[in-house]
Amino acid sequence: MSSPLCPLALNTATLGFKDPLAGIVDAAARRGIAGIAPWRRELQAVPPRDARRLFDDAGLAVTCLCRGSYLTYASALQRDAILDDNRRAIDEAAAIGAPTLCMVVGGLPEGMHDLAQARAQVADQLAALLPHARAHDVRLAVEPLHPMYAADRSCVSTLAQALDICDRVGPEVGVMIDAYHLWWDPDFAAGLARAGAGRLLGWQICDWRVPTRDLLQDRGMIGDGVIDLKRMHAQVLQAGWDGMVEVEIFSALDWDQRPMEETLDVMCARYARLGLAAA
Amino acid sequence: MSSPLCPLALNTATLGFKDPLAGIVDAAARRGIAGIAPWRRELQAVPPRDARRLFDDAGLAVTCLCRGSYLTYASALQRDAILDDNRRAIDEAAAIGAPTLCMVVGGLPEGMHDLAQARAQVADQLAALLPHARAHDVRLAVEPLHPMYAADRSCVSTLAQALDICDRVGPEVGVMIDAYHLWWDPDFAAGLARAGAGRLLGWQICDWRVPTRDLLQDRGMIGDGVIDLKRMHAQVLQAGWDGMVEVEIFSALDWDQRPMEETLDVMCARYARLGLAAA
Repeated sequence: MSSPLCPLALNTATLGFKDPLAGIVDAAARRGIAGIAPWRRELQAVPPRDARRLFDDAGLAVTCLCRGSYLTYASALQRDAILDDNRRAIDEAAAIGAPTLCMVVGGLPEGMHDLAQARAQVADQLAALLPHARAHDVRLAVEPLHPMYAADRSCVSTLAQALDICDRVGPEVGVMIDAYHLWWDPDFAAGLARAGAGRLLGWQICDWRVPTRDLLQDRGMIGDGVIDLKRMHAQVLQAGWDGMVEVEIFSALDWDQRPMEETLDVMCARYARLGLAAA
Repeated sequence: MSSPLCPLALNTATLGFKDPLAGIVDAAARRGIAGIAPWRRELQAVPPRDARRLFDDAGLAVTCLCRGSYLTYASALQRDAILDDNRRAIDEAAAIGAPTLCMVVGGLPEGMHDLAQARAQVADQLAALLPHARAHDVRLAVEPLHPMYAADRSCVSTLAQALDICDRVGPEVGVMIDAYHLWWDPDFAAGLARAGAGRLLGWQICDWRVPTRDLLQDRGMIGDGVIDLKRMHAQVLQAGWDGMVEVEIFSALDWDQRPMEETLDVMCARYARLGLAAA
């Protein structure tokens, strides 16, 4: 095999959901990529059991399933439907062998203007999901999202807020940390120390482009932006993280338009050049 | 006069810089608007002394001058040029009768990836400017900007960070608070209490649109977004703010394309409907 071993996890969003899962798994395995984080939408074309076999046969460890549906709600009916859907997500995570379900918690429900109230809903919803997650040996990872998504995607914007929710719900709940969302946060290192290794459930990276042309779909390839990924990675390792680093890039404006093979080649080359494996 | 009295301050960016300053002043005065926050670019067409006469004749109080130039730098030469330009900005603020110069502090200088280092530059630059500001009786207001601008506009993202810098530089330096930048911040109320009335130098509002279509130029008219402005306003008043609330909207995507008279009418009507005057 001519490509170098690339001991990271590929979040499949990085490839823009244009290729079939089997092709992605094959292309990742050929490059010595070590792990994969698939999305639920991909399990509609490939049932969880078949997906698990694909990953196992290719020697890809599953880091997490992306992702639970938004937890915040405007009515009891909506609340219950959300719980049902997230229980199905937990089932799917278990079925593909993912140790973790990534939770993007949702923003302000229709008509609500109080972020604190939305956060309280998130804690209550996680508590309601916890028995099902426990029974299936799947951990729920609360992901703080960048404050620019506070209104419509995540009322949880900082690592400290995510940990406040974890404290309230229980020790099995942890956090998904993503350099894109947290690179600006002056309390990042303090949050890592507070989390401790036992509550760090995932570590995602991409880069922050300058300028950023779109709030959602202009994440940069690692090395193409201003985030000091090597420094953040060292901080995460120091906090006790011993899992893989996962590359997750949303980029309808650029990378989604390139062939999968190109994106994977650049990703692996950048990973090696940034020295994250050695950090 | 048929329009209601509108005791807010108009930040002229709200009108998109398409009308001459004299026309803006006249249109604001006709609506009983109480204050104005002009931009330095407008003082190139209307010299500061003439601008001051315009404001005085119309009975408009000047809340602040927008704004100092970015303080972060990549070289000693750039650092000195920045100080020179900001001293000129202080001169202009004094000349138009503005008590405050709003400071947007700048992001990461070219080639730098360390936000903490950039923030240290900001503190040093403010300290260097302080004697000039003091001599001209102009207060420097550090404005924390939304974290989505951390890379290219402001390495200071939270009220706590702005106050850390104020603590370091001296008691004459204060903060400009803007609902758009801080609405998501769980520590907003704590920051207001920490600031105290003596360091609150300005209070700006607009709204957060869902979806937000552009990182810079899609701010919403007050009442068109999700920010609980009435609640934030009450918090600011409780912290001791007794100045005007200033409406600042950047909206190349919408409001800049409308006639000035329409924007002002909607702004005054919304201000009345939101009950901010009575809060």
